Amino acid sequence: MSGVIVTGPPKAAAEDVEALARFGVATVSEAMGRTGLLGRGIRPVQQGVRVAGTAVTVLGWPGDNLMIHAAVEQCGEGDLLVVTTTSPSTDGLFGELFATALQARGVRGVVLNTGIRDTQELRDMGFPAWARAVSAQGTVKATGGSVNVPIAIDGQVIHPGDVILADDDGVVIVPRRRAHAVALVARAREDKEARARAAFLDGELSLDRYGLRGKLKQLGVEYRTYEEYSAGEET
Amino acid sequence: MSGVIVTGPPKAAAEDVEALARFGVATVSEAMGRTGLLGRGIRPVQQGVRVAGTAVTVLGWPGDNLMIHAAVEQCGEGDLLVVTTTSPSTDGLFGELFATALQARGVRGVVLNTGIRDTQELRDMGFPAWARAVSAQGTVKATGGSVNVPIAIDGQVIHPGDVILADDDGVVIVPRRRAHAVALVARAREDKEARARAAFLDGELSLDRYGLRGKLKQLGVEYRTYEEYSAGEET
Amino acid sequence: MSGVIVTGPPKAAAEDVEALARFGVATVSEAMGRTGLLGRGIRPVQQGVRVAGTAVTVLGWPGDNLMIHAAVEQCGEGDLLVVTTTSPSTDGLFGELFATALQARGVRGVVLNTGIRDTQELRDMGFPAWARAVSAQGTVKATGGSVNVPIAIDGQVIHPGDVILADDDGVVIVPRRRAHAVALVARAREDKEARARAAFLDGELSLDRYGLRGKLKQLGVEYRTYEEYSAGEET
Amino acid sequence: MSGVIVTGPPKAAAEDVEALARFGVATVSEAMGRTGLLGRGIRPVQQGVRVAGTAVTVLGWPGDNLMIHAAVEQCGEGDLLVVTTTSPSTDGLFGELFATALQARGVRGVVLNTGIRDTQELRDMGFPAWARAVSAQGTVKATGGSVNVPIAIDGQVIHPGDVILADDDGVVIVPRRRAHAVALVARAREDKEARARAAFLDGELSLDRYGLRGKLKQLGVEYRTYEEYSAGEET
Amino acid sequence: MSGVIVTGPPKAAAEDVEALARFGVATVSEAMGRTGLLGRGIRPVQQGVRVAGTAVTVLGWPGDNLMIHAAVEQCGEGDLLVVTTTSPSTDGLFGELFATALQARGVRGVVLNTGIRDTQELRDMGFPAWARAVSAQGTVKATGGSVNVPIAIDGQVIHPGDVILADDDGVVIVPRRRAHAVALVARAREDKEARARAAFLDGELSLDRYGLRGKLKQLGVEYRTYEEYSAGEET
Amino acid sequence: MSGVIVTGPPKAAAEDVEALARFGVATVSEAMGRTGLLGRGIRPVQQGVRVAGTAVTVLGWPGDNLMIHAAVEQCGEGDLLVVTTTSPSTDGLFGELFATALQARGVRGVVLNTGIRDTQELRDMGFPAWARAVSAQGTVKATGGSVNVPIAIDGQVIHPGDVILADDDGVVIVPRRRAHAVALVARAREDKEARARAAFLDGELSLDRYGLRGKLKQLGVEYRTYEEYSAGEET
Repeated sequence: MSGVIVTGPPKAAAEDVEALARFGVATVSEAMGRTGLLGRGIRPVQQGVRVAGTAVTVLGWPGDNLMIHAAVEQCGEGDLLVVTTTSPSTDGLFGELFATALQARGVRGVVLNTGIRDTQELRDMGFPAWARAVSAQGTVKATGGSVNVPIAIDGQVIHPGDVILADDDGVVIVPRRRAHAVALVARAREDKEARARAAFLDGELSLDRYGLRGKLKQLGVEYRTYEEYSAGEET
Repeated sequence: MSGVIVTGPPKAAAEDVEALARFGVATVSEAMGRTGLLGRGIRPVQQGVRVAGTAVTVLGWPGDNLMIHAAVEQCGEGDLLVVTTTSPSTDGLFGELFATALQARGVRGVVLNTGIRDTQELRDMGFPAWARAVSAQGTVKATGGSVNVPIAIDGQVIHPGDVILADDDGVVIVPRRRAHAVALVARAREDKEARARAAFLDGELSLDRYGLRGKLKQLGVEYRTYEEYSAGEET
Repeated sequence: MSGVIVTGPPKAAAEDVEALARFGVATVSEAMGRTGLLGRGIRPVQQGVRVAGTAVTVLGWPGDNLMIHAAVEQCGEGDLLVVTTTSPSTDGLFGELFATALQARGVRGVVLNTGIRDTQELRDMGFPAWARAVSAQGTVKATGGSVNVPIAIDGQVIHPGDVILADDDGVVIVPRRRAHAVALVARAREDKEARARAAFLDGELSLDRYGLRGKLKQLGVEYRTYEEYSAGEET
Repeated sequence: MSGVIVTGPPKAAAEDVEALARFGVATVSEAMGRTGLLGRGIRPVQQGVRVAGTAVTVLGWPGDNLMIHAAVEQCGEGDLLVVTTTSPSTDGLFGELFATALQARGVRGVVLNTGIRDTQELRDMGFPAWARAVSAQGTVKATGGSVNVPIAIDGQVIHPGDVILADDDGVVIVPRRRAHAVALVARAREDKEARARAAFLDGELSLDRYGLRGKLKQLGVEYRTYEEYSAGEET
Repeated sequence: MSGVIVTGPPKAAAEDVEALARFGVATVSEAMGRTGLLGRGIRPVQQGVRVAGTAVTVLGWPGDNLMIHAAVEQCGEGDLLVVTTTSPSTDGLFGELFATALQARGVRGVVLNTGIRDTQELRDMGFPAWARAVSAQGTVKATGGSVNVPIAIDGQVIHPGDVILADDDGVVIVPRRRAHAVALVARAREDKEARARAAFLDGELSLDRYGLRGKLKQLGVEYRTYEEYSAGEET
Repeated sequence: MSGVIVTGPPKAAAEDVEALARFGVATVSEAMGRTGLLGRGIRPVQQGVRVAGTAVTVLGWPGDNLMIHAAVEQCGEGDLLVVTTTSPSTDGLFGELFATALQARGVRGVVLNTGIRDTQELRDMGFPAWARAVSAQGTVKATGGSVNVPIAIDGQVIHPGDVILADDDGVVIVPRRRAHAVALVARAREDKEARARAAFLDGELSLDRYGLRGKLKQLGVEYRTYEEYSAGEET
């Protein structure tokens, strides 16, 4: 497989990345109309960590980490590496040595649509990672691929320079040009949720706050007492 | 999909719930003749927590949490919310705002045959949850369903008012009318296990304690030395 | 199913087990030419633990733990129990009572190609376990099987007396007769990785260190600037 | 595991079974408000066959077909055997010998939440079967279970005597007491679909026939030409 | 979820579609450098059918077929409908009534990243379909979505107007602007394969024809007789 | 990965292969004490075909078919190719060109622990195949491996020269030295089953024929009428 390594792609503005980093993955996805999420198969290696960065993308061959070696050079301060392969693979393409090299360059983490290894060492180093699998299976360096081309994971297209936000709930992609607008919407949603939280603690029901009683009625959902319901079952 | 919201179902007695809460899920399932367990696909969001409560059941549409809004009103002190959908779904139907509202009403936790989100926040709040998936994918409020009707998860029927016991090993359902009897059996099992534990620490073998040597012989299982066995292989 | 219980198989030398225990699973697998790993479906019950021991093997019937009872007697100081079944099963074949009996005999842990239960109790006891599933589903003691015969898990043959090394990355099998040689190779690899780690901290690129630039070129991978690449897309 | 064999349960009326047998699984499920289906994991062994019968239910132990032997005696003319196990199992619990015995008693087919074998022979005999897996793995006859108790498969409760309807699309359960009413609704749906089919062949759009244009507008879905849409992308 | 329905997108030229329709999915994917394939999870409902058409794309909500109703109006002669949902869903979103309406408009088939139903009727009608699942589970018409926007399935981006080619081996996407060039390359590959086929029938080895003996040697692969190999094992 | 190609291994006698070919996979596995089966994930590409042959084994790299090229030369009359890879892979490693070359050499079929392509062509040619997946995803020829070394699939060890028997129910391995004895046992089993089949057609119950009623009683399985059972439920 031949390929291409793209250098110097444009990236989302640092202040937009920081703004998005203040919100959770769920909030940001809601602010984009419930879109942008990678599937739930990609899980964090650690707990309680949230990071945001600009994507450096890698498209490699299964069982082969040659292109991650190539991508390290393209990574810098504030980036986050995102790796996928041409066919599904759970081999451990990424481990502590790569993390050491990336951390030294200011990279904030890695998202792998493949396997990862040395997970205890990564937690000890504080290098955050999200991956589809944990596997000690090693790899070769035999086949070409690409860096910083558009890739797709779980039906989600990722361009180099897009914002990647990841936490315990998963990973969300914010397209580079939408980063500023999405941060504004997310802020507005958080304010609205704070008011709802206070109301719920006061005992208000979401059924009333969101006007859902009328909707239930319109959908034909009826209220019955247990006695009425049990009697109906026996006829 | 139309549906029904059943109000005021009978519930297991609080003292039976407390009695069951002293045992682990495995012990209670054994006490029911190795039945009552939800499948191993439903996992805890936190570690080291055990809760018991009376079921409030929800049957909703995949990707739609309208009926959880309706169920909040039916939940009270000592309850535990149990949610399933008409088709499999891993979307994040439940998050921190619902947990806030439920905790304010004395609800003890949630079991979801779907996805959950805001997992870090739930751990921080101390609201225990068991779910089939973690997903930040948001939902709509568009389709009707039912509350407090019998539902089935992983081949296990759950009626409103049944006892739900959940810990790191999974989730077990104790039917309302059997709660008292099961608690008595579980207590007797625990006493028996304590005596076995002491014996094993003293070096007694379960082979002898449970009289299993005769069973092995009757089943045709033979003992051979490594030399005998290796010789047999080569003929 | 009848079967056989083999007594007194030869075991890897204790000093080789200790030597291997100093390395991670990934390093040891690399030292064996990227072989020896169980699949990624077998996961640790705890975090941050590494153990090595000599295998006592069990082949049982799904949903039946009779042969684990028989195996306890064959286990001693420095062993590690490895269990599989004739058909796939996720039932919880192993729990706290077995761990108590094994710990009293000096056994170092358990690897299960099935389900496990009492996971919180096992963590509290400090008895390490790796398993395919967590399940509170109980088992019967009705069907025969074998102890200390060769078994295979995930396409990996395991003989009694082989070295089992397990950590957060998974489980690797080192054949008894290769244990000493593998430990020597693993040591050499670690030295080489340490030098690479230092070089990366100094800013050296793996592309240069491993001479991969030529390989990329030979495989047809080209470098292009973003402008060149974008221009190319539009034609 | 002890259990119970229930003899002589009431069954759905033969004329209602025949009435339902004229419709497809999809139509009958729609007539029950889109409920009653087993999951898509249970697939037909043959193509182009539709059968309906009254359920004889079996709850067995994984890898053990003792209770199917017991169930044969409880099966008669017009019945359909439905089998599940206490834990998931894909072993081949059912084959040509059972089918021969059942066919001689007038049984119409089998639905297995486990594995099946002898599939070529079953097709040759014309004995229809739906199963979760095809596996030649044999079984033991060692553990008890139950016949004709309520069981649950894929979140669907099945009582003895319920109507089971199965075809290439899957399997649907019609509760015994609802069989007559569901057959009437299914008939009305088929008439309605026939009129819609004629209209669609005449070129009418479902958007117009079902009044969905207003709904799209109310949901905020807009129409744009390709030129408008592409221009919007570039801003 | 709001959305957009894009009208009048440009489409691949009919002669290029016809040219591609003469090749198999494997050949066309090879001609694009082994890219363009949907994953192996999307399977044909029938056997022995190959179709090519221009994509009309649908992005809907799981368990909801409202947007397929909207898409029918956008479909015409030579098109092929491609449907995905915002979250994974196996519900039967598509059946015989939709196929009737589409067939009347000259549509060539459907590719569903979800479930399908009425499979026997679709085979009888001769309307080809590829789907991730077969399920009789019905759907609602409650939530908005989009038609003719770019979608992604199994990591493959699909634009409206792209060529979709599907047969027993799977589904491949040819981007609209590359359709002509890919057809030329596929033709050249077929000629080359025909010459290889003739040579193999004459007894030539692929090892010789492709010059692979040198490669094996260079990779360190050695030839040994069985006697040499067996002797080596025993040392 | 370097490797080795073993030439001229001993093979099972042709008359034993033919004898085994008269039985089904299920019967032969039973005759070996319910062992020898590959898992149910490996499925036939065609229906109604049974073949037996002597194994030529291949161990390759995922996504790389270089070693199948090398294996063709080692295959001859009566052989059956068996392929696995060092890590799980569903790529289409094998297709019509390989089948053409093998068929010209008298090879009887292929069993792949990976993906296959050109399935329609293979059925048209009458070249039988069993595979874990169908995928048009192409492969590279970049990495070495081995031919005719022992391999393991689904926990089953396969040596070159072993008998491979495959049909609609799956694939079973008979070790070379046991082929004659297993054929004799299989013959005896078939005679016994024929007698049982006749008895069942006469109305005899397997409960009686196999003396299982006593077993049911011993296991605590009780018979109750529906009325007794229903009454018991209500107390």
